Amino acid sequence: MQHQRRLFLTFLLFTVFHYSRAQAPPQWQEVQPGIWKATAGKPEKISLLGAAGAKPNLTALVTLPKAPFPLAKTDISVRVIDGKTYLRFPLEEGEQLFGLGLNFQTVNQRGRIMELHVDHYGSKDNGRTHAPVPFYVSSKGYGVLVDAARYITVYAGTAVRTDAKHPPVLRDRNTDKKWEAQPYSDAVEMLVPAEGATLYVFAGPTPMNVVQRYNLMNGGGYLPPKWGLGFTQRVPTLYSQDDILKEVQSFEEHNFPLDFIGVEPGWHSMAYPCTFEWEKTRFPDPKGFLKKLADKGISANLWMNPYVSPVGTLYPKIKPFTGSHTVWNGIVPDFTLPQARQLFKEHFMSQHLNIGVGGYKIDEVDGYDNWIWPDVATFPSGTSAEQMRQTYGLMVQQMTGSWFREINKRTYGLVRASNAGASSFPYVIYNDYYSHKDFITALVNSSFIGVLWTPEVRASKTAEEWVRRMQSVCFSPMAMLNAWADGTKPWSFPEVEQAVSDVANLRMQLLPYLYSTFAQYRFEGKPPFRAMNLVEGFGFKSVTVAGTFDATANPYAMSIKKDIKDQYMMGDYLLVAPMFAGEKSREVYLPQGKWYDFYTGKEVGENQVITVTPALDKIPLFVKDGALIPMVPPHRQAPKAGETLPLTVRHYGTASGSFQLYDDDGTTFDFEKGSYSFTQLTVSKTADGKLKGDMAAPANGKPFGYSKEIKWEFMTP
Amino acid sequence: MQHQRRLFLTFLLFTVFHYSRAQAPPQWQEVQPGIWKATAGKPEKISLLGAAGAKPNLTALVTLPKAPFPLAKTDISVRVIDGKTYLRFPLEEGEQLFGLGLNFQTVNQRGRIMELHVDHYGSKDNGRTHAPVPFYVSSKGYGVLVDAARYITVYAGTAVRTDAKHPPVLRDRNTDKKWEAQPYSDAVEMLVPAEGATLYVFAGPTPMNVVQRYNLMNGGGYLPPKWGLGFTQRVPTLYSQDDILKEVQSFEEHNFPLDFIGVEPGWHSMAYPCTFEWEKTRFPDPKGFLKKLADKGISANLWMNPYVSPVGTLYPKIKPFTGSHTVWNGIVPDFTLPQARQLFKEHFMSQHLNIGVGGYKIDEVDGYDNWIWPDVATFPSGTSAEQMRQTYGLMVQQMTGSWFREINKRTYGLVRASNAGASSFPYVIYNDYYSHKDFITALVNSSFIGVLWTPEVRASKTAEEWVRRMQSVCFSPMAMLNAWADGTKPWSFPEVEQAVSDVANLRMQLLPYLYSTFAQYRFEGKPPFRAMNLVEGFGFKSVTVAGTFDATANPYAMSIKKDIKDQYMMGDYLLVAPMFAGEKSREVYLPQGKWYDFYTGKEVGENQVITVTPALDKIPLFVKDGALIPMVPPHRQAPKAGETLPLTVRHYGTASGSFQLYDDDGTTFDFEKGSYSFTQLTVSKTADGKLKGDMAAPANGKPFGYSKEIKWEFMTP
Repeated sequence: MQHQRRLFLTFLLFTVFHYSRAQAPPQWQEVQPGIWKATAGKPEKISLLGAAGAKPNLTALVTLPKAPFPLAKTDISVRVIDGKTYLRFPLEEGEQLFGLGLNFQTVNQRGRIMELHVDHYGSKDNGRTHAPVPFYVSSKGYGVLVDAARYITVYAGTAVRTDAKHPPVLRDRNTDKKWEAQPYSDAVEMLVPAEGATLYVFAGPTPMNVVQRYNLMNGGGYLPPKWGLGFTQRVPTLYSQDDILKEVQSFEEHNFPLDFIGVEPGWHSMAYPCTFEWEKTRFPDPKGFLKKLADKGISANLWMNPYVSPVGTLYPKIKPFTGSHTVWNGIVPDFTLPQARQLFKEHFMSQHLNIGVGGYKIDEVDGYDNWIWPDVATFPSGTSAEQMRQTYGLMVQQMTGSWFREINKRTYGLVRASNAGASSFPYVIYNDYYSHKDFITALVNSSFIGVLWTPEVRASKTAEEWVRRMQSVCFSPMAMLNAWADGTKPWSFPEVEQAVSDVANLRMQLLPYLYSTFAQYRFEGKPPFRAMNLVEGFGFKSVTVAGTFDATANPYAMSIKKDIKDQYMMGDYLLVAPMFAGEKSREVYLPQGKWYDFYTGKEVGENQVITVTPALDKIPLFVKDGALIPMVPPHRQAPKAGETLPLTVRHYGTASGSFQLYDDDGTTFDFEKGSYSFTQLTVSKTADGKLKGDMAAPANGKPFGYSKEIKWEFMTP
Repeated sequence: MQHQRRLFLTFLLFTVFHYSRAQAPPQWQEVQPGIWKATAGKPEKISLLGAAGAKPNLTALVTLPKAPFPLAKTDISVRVIDGKTYLRFPLEEGEQLFGLGLNFQTVNQRGRIMELHVDHYGSKDNGRTHAPVPFYVSSKGYGVLVDAARYITVYAGTAVRTDAKHPPVLRDRNTDKKWEAQPYSDAVEMLVPAEGATLYVFAGPTPMNVVQRYNLMNGGGYLPPKWGLGFTQRVPTLYSQDDILKEVQSFEEHNFPLDFIGVEPGWHSMAYPCTFEWEKTRFPDPKGFLKKLADKGISANLWMNPYVSPVGTLYPKIKPFTGSHTVWNGIVPDFTLPQARQLFKEHFMSQHLNIGVGGYKIDEVDGYDNWIWPDVATFPSGTSAEQMRQTYGLMVQQMTGSWFREINKRTYGLVRASNAGASSFPYVIYNDYYSHKDFITALVNSSFIGVLWTPEVRASKTAEEWVRRMQSVCFSPMAMLNAWADGTKPWSFPEVEQAVSDVANLRMQLLPYLYSTFAQYRFEGKPPFRAMNLVEGFGFKSVTVAGTFDATANPYAMSIKKDIKDQYMMGDYLLVAPMFAGEKSREVYLPQGKWYDFYTGKEVGENQVITVTPALDKIPLFVKDGALIPMVPPHRQAPKAGETLPLTVRHYGTASGSFQLYDDDGTTFDFEKGSYSFTQLTVSKTADGKLKGDMAAPANGKPFGYSKEIKWEFMTP
């Protein structure tokens, strides 16, 4: 008894001590309009935003609606215990959470547990993905970012504290059918395995405003060169310079659009690991080869991974600045060191950029674990393997992007890993996963987290799958056929060659609309391809369907959440509802306001779910009432600087409307010094109720690549 | 230039500082015969072996072969960097690695990356499993254990250091067909996210000796009560005491073996969370009910999870000793605190043990993440959620096991989570996963890591599946039909009732063999159910098959490893090769030495792969040359203390042989005080070359439950 009492006293003392460590509430400081920052514990030297190195676009941020701090500050809890940071943010009933990385299967992340970890996507939305951005957007119109280059565990409305403000109802599983395997949780909790992190809270009021603030804080979105929005083909491994020139010629022969070409492994003197030096039998004259491509208006994009082969000239120089472990026998540069960056720059500038290379496909910076450096690797800067893993994709994007900026040439490439702070990087994420439906869900989710994604086409089992995949990739940030392994061409299925050609041409026709949409990304922070959840008037509430009990497959009768994850917006006006092989019809969820068929101009509905049964040669596209869609005639390549194209502006529906048509030289960063134009297109009703189109005078002396005579097409009868 | 030089100097200084932190090599101390211990950094207060609390069986350890430290000490590296422990152990070419948790799909773990994490099994061998034991056994005959209650990341021969002693060959993927996605690695590397760990190295010389040392260091294996090796049925949820008594009666009517019965949710006044108090309408008289069962020779096993419901009497008392988060609204006891353990003990003793409850099924201590406490939970003892997750199953097993030991009554139950140090615990692991084949692979793998596993039967789609599952569960540590959800009975498929009855009776006939086999586990550390890799003369080398390139499904042409994972040994002599539904034949890998069909005694082969096509009513069983298999007549229940059964001893093959027949009272721990007998059975060749059986005189005054007249059956003509 004496013993027990002593134990109890010891315990009480310990408890008092333990809980007295509760820490001061975070001090929130408004660092940008509608963006608050707070410090939890001692943030580390290496961070995501630090690695990305972007600067906020204050000019644009001040134009967003003023908004107060969007959460009750007292409901946010921050504690550091034993070198780890514990975070808690409140949740309300019915709130949905978007973001938390490039997810492929789900949109609303409430109810999920994730460990955010840069990795190849392994077919589960568990946090391991190419861009595990620790940022979420609430349907209530606010956002939270945790800036820490660590494997952060997120409990997105799953953990239930004993002292929860809104505890779940106590139920008996034996007798109460409403018993739930996952009881209601009123908080997002996160564990950052580091003794601090920098936190950001973003105000809305709308989810789109949150995303805009996030993107603008990270420099605004990237504006690709015009050619980047044209079509691209990646050639098979081991293609020689002659093979590639023949490939280009075959695109001419098929009159198929082609703006840039991807050179896959085979151009390095060794890969993988890589030398980043031209292989002399396949590429005896790289400079001449690139010149020939340029003469045909084609830019070249080089595949690479950053692991340095012992047989190249870069190896001995960079060896001191590399990590303890190899990747496929290649050494791993420590890009936190200026020396490593400088050596790469010198090598790449002289070998590639100075002779005309237009961009890179940066492979293998995501993982996966089976070959990337292990978490036990060490690096000469002292950066841990974990921090390196979370930031490597960011650093490589930042570094390579800065080279092109230095020579005032916009690039547009591919990367397999990214993270927070990447909005302004000239890269589109891709992977091997190849589920067409999930590729579309990734496109939806990319819009929440400041990254771009391409649902690339490689091969297909049937002509139907081929055309359906080609259609959706033409409505994505990069219209790419990646034939590195298969050698497929756009016309590989002759029975659908025309349909594939049609959709590629449609993309080319839509370039004025698409380029202006990317300008919105750059100047306003609005993602070019958008989840429906970012659209005002999209009233869909994530539906939870009670699970069906199955003693083996679902013994806890876990419920299933339904999302709208197979349709999205391209810009403000175009709703894209891709078709998938094997499906003859599909449902489309239309937000509030009237919607019209893109092809016919006919009204299709408003604020409702419709079912469409499109022909094989059409991807379902719907346009908002009052929309203006500027288009040009089909053309094989994006216009070059100084080129002038005839403009047709389509109007849909019965409402008046307007459009800001953006233009610049299409290739340089001169637009950042003011060398660009926004030209207002307007459709209004005349006194007799008819619709009439107008174009404001293009700004004097600024780039404007369209003829001044516009053809107006009123699509809705 | 000046600037660059300064940067470089700073960098050099940093590097020198960084690498000068290389730490002193670990000091290995032989703490038990053939077991060395070393300390890396500062091990934490909470550890796996600490939570398990087992004491070594020195008496048995000294009987194992003397052996030197099995590795080159200089090839072992230990470093602590930024609060994490980095470990590296050498690997040789051709070496296979076994263990590293209860894996369900693979046996040889070389080439895998795992994060060892107590969790439900999610269909990938990635470290998340019910018993993620950080222990591996090498085919070269040594073992390594890392005692740390953390999520340890293991690179089991995947990571390649730039300074590797045996680096992989440099290859060009473009031109060299031998290029591998995973280059050769000569080390196991591990990351322990804590500033220290205790390390153990186990000598062989055989893999079986390694496992024996591991089990004996952890107290030796558990010897179940005899009834624990009989048949058990778990009744459906919400069954009342009367329902259960009727269930028992139906077993009598079908003349089907039944030794203990599992009471599923419905006996608590609330579950889940649990009150651990009897529900009064279904169980008006628990004591009388248990007495009636005992009168029929039946022991009762109660389902529970340890999360305490607010409506029970335990709740207010234990509340101060529970964690920050709830599980299904239940509070989570901090079992590192003596107060929590004491309160549980008082409650359980008075409610259950004192009125005759025979054991528990401890559910939900594995996870999974969706409902168990999150890693952001805190506990009053200061133990982190991660440490608690890794040790909870151990602590609950240790605690409940000690209650039964206190009343000198052996128990035998079920648990969903375990870890290192569990060999001597009276529990068998189970889960919901229900792949018959993978259940067998788990049984194989359980033998490396000191745990028991049951491939429980629940329901089946066909009679064929039913009988095949019933056959294999009767050759496992617990012959269980778990009908909590389905209400299935052994005779649910009348067309195979006889075959099911036959195999259950065969298990009962084999009890003398099986009980002696468990005595080996207890006294020698040999697992009762064994991977073939632990058998001397098993010459199978894990085969790696080159992967087939597929641009989408396998773009890196990852190779596939082939294992023998669907057959195992029960004890020294019986090879079990279960059949699976849909298969009419199977291959069986026979180790060196001649092998005989169990049923006919006919020779089937030696050191070769044979194909067998057994009838539906037979599970393929093979017996080693010279084996003795002691058996008793079919009987519905394991013998009670004092009962005497007639003994038949089968002999197979042509070689002479012997068997140590173990016996004791079958229910108490008195055997630990010497109250047991080992009786030698021998078959030898007489002068005229005939076989002759002999039994040594049973030890005087020790328990021996067999008649002294033995029937010898020479099975091989």
